[in-house]
Amino acid sequence: MLKTASKISVPGFLANGISAGIKGADKKDLGLIYSTVPAKAAAVFTRNAFKAAPVLINMERIKKGSAQAILTNSGCANAATGKDGYTDALVVSASAAKQIKIPEEQLLVCSTGVIGRRLPVKKIESGLSRLVKGLHEYGIEDAEEAMMTTDQYPKIAIRKGIVGAKDITVCGIAKGAGMIEPNMATLLVYVMTDALVESKALNTVFHQVIDTTFNAVSVDGCMSTNDTAIILANGLAGNNPLERAQARIQRFRDMLMDVLAELAQAVVKDGEGATKLITITVEGAKTRSDARKAAYAIANSNLVKTAFFGEDPNWGRILAALGASGIPLEREKVTLCLGGVPVFAQDAPQDFMPARLRDVFKSKKIDVLVSLGSGDKAHKLLTSDLSYDYVKINADYST
Amino acid sequence: MLKTASKISVPGFLANGISAGIKGADKKDLGLIYSTVPAKAAAVFTRNAFKAAPVLINMERIKKGSAQAILTNSGCANAATGKDGYTDALVVSASAAKQIKIPEEQLLVCSTGVIGRRLPVKKIESGLSRLVKGLHEYGIEDAEEAMMTTDQYPKIAIRKGIVGAKDITVCGIAKGAGMIEPNMATLLVYVMTDALVESKALNTVFHQVIDTTFNAVSVDGCMSTNDTAIILANGLAGNNPLERAQARIQRFRDMLMDVLAELAQAVVKDGEGATKLITITVEGAKTRSDARKAAYAIANSNLVKTAFFGEDPNWGRILAALGASGIPLEREKVTLCLGGVPVFAQDAPQDFMPARLRDVFKSKKIDVLVSLGSGDKAHKLLTSDLSYDYVKINADYST
Repeated sequence: MLKTASKISVPGFLANGISAGIKGADKKDLGLIYSTVPAKAAAVFTRNAFKAAPVLINMERIKKGSAQAILTNSGCANAATGKDGYTDALVVSASAAKQIKIPEEQLLVCSTGVIGRRLPVKKIESGLSRLVKGLHEYGIEDAEEAMMTTDQYPKIAIRKGIVGAKDITVCGIAKGAGMIEPNMATLLVYVMTDALVESKALNTVFHQVIDTTFNAVSVDGCMSTNDTAIILANGLAGNNPLERAQARIQRFRDMLMDVLAELAQAVVKDGEGATKLITITVEGAKTRSDARKAAYAIANSNLVKTAFFGEDPNWGRILAALGASGIPLEREKVTLCLGGVPVFAQDAPQDFMPARLRDVFKSKKIDVLVSLGSGDKAHKLLTSDLSYDYVKINADYST
Repeated sequence: MLKTASKISVPGFLANGISAGIKGADKKDLGLIYSTVPAKAAAVFTRNAFKAAPVLINMERIKKGSAQAILTNSGCANAATGKDGYTDALVVSASAAKQIKIPEEQLLVCSTGVIGRRLPVKKIESGLSRLVKGLHEYGIEDAEEAMMTTDQYPKIAIRKGIVGAKDITVCGIAKGAGMIEPNMATLLVYVMTDALVESKALNTVFHQVIDTTFNAVSVDGCMSTNDTAIILANGLAGNNPLERAQARIQRFRDMLMDVLAELAQAVVKDGEGATKLITITVEGAKTRSDARKAAYAIANSNLVKTAFFGEDPNWGRILAALGASGIPLEREKVTLCLGGVPVFAQDAPQDFMPARLRDVFKSKKIDVLVSLGSGDKAHKLLTSDLSYDYVKINADYST
C-alpha cells in the first residue's frame, strides 16, 4: 500500500501536479486537488506560534465548513515572511481561484519547504494555467508528488467500502519526512472522499481520527509552521448524510482510521534516514499525561534513537530517558520489555538471553513496552531511529 | 586551558588513575582523588528517577558535609542494577576505604559507562592496591583520564589566587561528552581546593555556581542516571574560614566560577561529534521559565543542530523551534539575530547580506540572540551542533 497503486481516483475529484520551476530541475512542485462540486471540509492545523501565511488564510476559510480545491506548492514554506508573505499567498490564491473558476474562499492553499523565504509568486502564477488545464481523474499521484520535499516515496492510502448501501471511497495522501516531532518537518495530509457527511460530524470524526493517528506519531506539541490536515467530502456517493451519534458513521470512521493510520506509519517509516519503525507503549500510568510524557521522553532521546540505529542493545538508555522524563516513578514497579524480552523489573535487570535481545534490535520493527505499575492509563506512539542520513539530509537542506 | 597543563596539583591532594581491566586494552578506568586530611564537602546530584547505586550512596554520605576521597570507575555506570548493584557499590567502597585507610563514610564513589550492567567488582578490587600505592601529588591528570568515556580530551581547569591573605588553589576536572541534555551522557565534575570554607557556605556557593555554569549547558532537567558534581575543600591554605554573607567569600566564588565555566564550555565543545559552540540567549521574556523553555526548545531541535553542523543558514528552523516551544509569543515583537546579523523582526525577514549570514554559520562559535520583547527576563545556554560523528559514536556504544 505504500507503493503507489496505479489508477487511483475518487469519484468527483480531479487532480494534477506539475513543475513550476520552484525547485528547478523539472521536479514537480505545484499540485492541485479539485472537487467538481463544493465539498464539506474540515481541517487540523499546527499550533506553532509562527504559523505560515497559508495556514492563517486556511484557518479563516475553513470556518464555513466548505471547500472545493487545495493548491499546494513545495520548495518554499512561505513562513516567517510577515505581511508580505501573507499578501503573496493571497495573490496566488486569487490567481488560482480565477483559473479554476471557483470563489476564492473555496480554495485552500498550502506551502512546504524552506522557512523565511518569499513565495515565488511569478513562477507559481505562470504555472497555474497548465496546472488547471491538466486536471484529470487519475491525477492524485501527480498532486502527491508535487508536495514531496525530502520524502523518499509517495504516501497514498485508499479504502473502498459500503456505507448506507452506497459504495464510497476514502483516499488520503501525505507528505512528511523530517524526524517529525520534535523536529518539525512539515506534515501535509489531505483526505478526499465521496461520502456525504454532515459538517459538524465530519469535523468531529476528522479530529478524533487525527488525534489517534498523526497526533500519535510524535507530531503534536512541536508542530512545524505549516502542518495541515484537510478532509474534503464531496457527497457524490449519494448516501444519506452521515450524522453524529449514528451507528452508520462508525463504518466511515473506520475507513478513515485505516487510511490515516496507514499514512501515519508511512510517514514515520520515511522519517529522514529512518531505518526502523519503533512503537513505544507506556502503560500503567496514573494519568494519560504521564503516559504521554514518558513515551515522548523515550521517543525523543537521541541516545535511544542512535542505539536503535546501531542495533546496540543498550536498553539502559531507555530507562535513563524514562527517569529523566520528570513523571513520578515507583522504581520497583517499573518493567521494561523489548520485543517481548523482559529486560528490567523489580528495580533490577532480568535474566534474559543477550542473543535474543540482539535479535530484537536487529529487526526492522521494534516494540518498546514500559509498564509503570502505578495506574491504568496508557499512551502509544510511533517513532523512528536516528541515522547518519538524518544528519546528512538536514545539514544542507536550504542550500 | 583545555589542554592538560603539566604538573597540576592542589596542596594536600593526591591522586592516581590506572587500568583495572574494566575497559580492556590498558585504558585507564579506575581513578582516585584523595585529601590527606578530611575535607569539607558539598555535591549536586542528578534528578533522574533511576539514580545509579553510587549516587544513592553518595547522597547519604554527603549529608554530614565531609569527605576525604572520591573513587571513580569508567566502563560501567552501575545504574539500573537494583539491590545487587547497590551491594556491589558497597563492597567496592568497603575494600577501597580499607586500602586508603579512611572511614568508609569518608569515601564517595562514582561510576560512568553502560547502564544496566553489573559492576565488575573483582576487577576493581584487584586494582585497588596498585591505585592507592600509586597516589601522588601530580596524579590529578591520571584520575581525570580514568573517568573519560567518549571524551576526546581531558578537561582540567585551575585557578590560583589570594583569599584572606593566603594563596589558595581551585582545580576542577570534568568528564562529559554525549550531546549532554537532552541526551543524558554522564557528567562528572570534581573540584579540589585547599581553601578553608565553612560547610554551609561551601554548599551554598557550590550550588549557585553549578546553577549558572553546568546547569546552563543543557544539563539540568534531563540528567543522566549518574550525574554528579562534588567539591572537596581541605582547608590546608590556612585562611580564616570563609563564611556566608562575607565579602571575602566573593573572591573564592569568582575563582570557582572561572573554573566551572571553563569546564562547562569544554564539555560542550567536546560534545560527541561537536564541531561548533553555540550560545543561545533568549531575552525579553515575561518569566525566567519562558526564557529557559524557549532557549532549550532551540538548543534541542535536531533540525537547528544539523543546520549549524552543515553551515546551512536555514534560520527559519530557529523560529519554528521557538514557535513550537509553547511559550506565549507576540510575533511582531520577536527579533532574531545571528552573530550580530538581524535576520527577523516585526514579523518579517530583515534585509541582510546573505554572505554575512553564511560567514556567521561558518564560524566555530555562533551566537543566537532571540529577543521576545515581552518582558525583562533572560536565559543563556551553551550547546553544540549535531554531526555524523554524534550518530557514529552513539550507535554502537555498548558493544
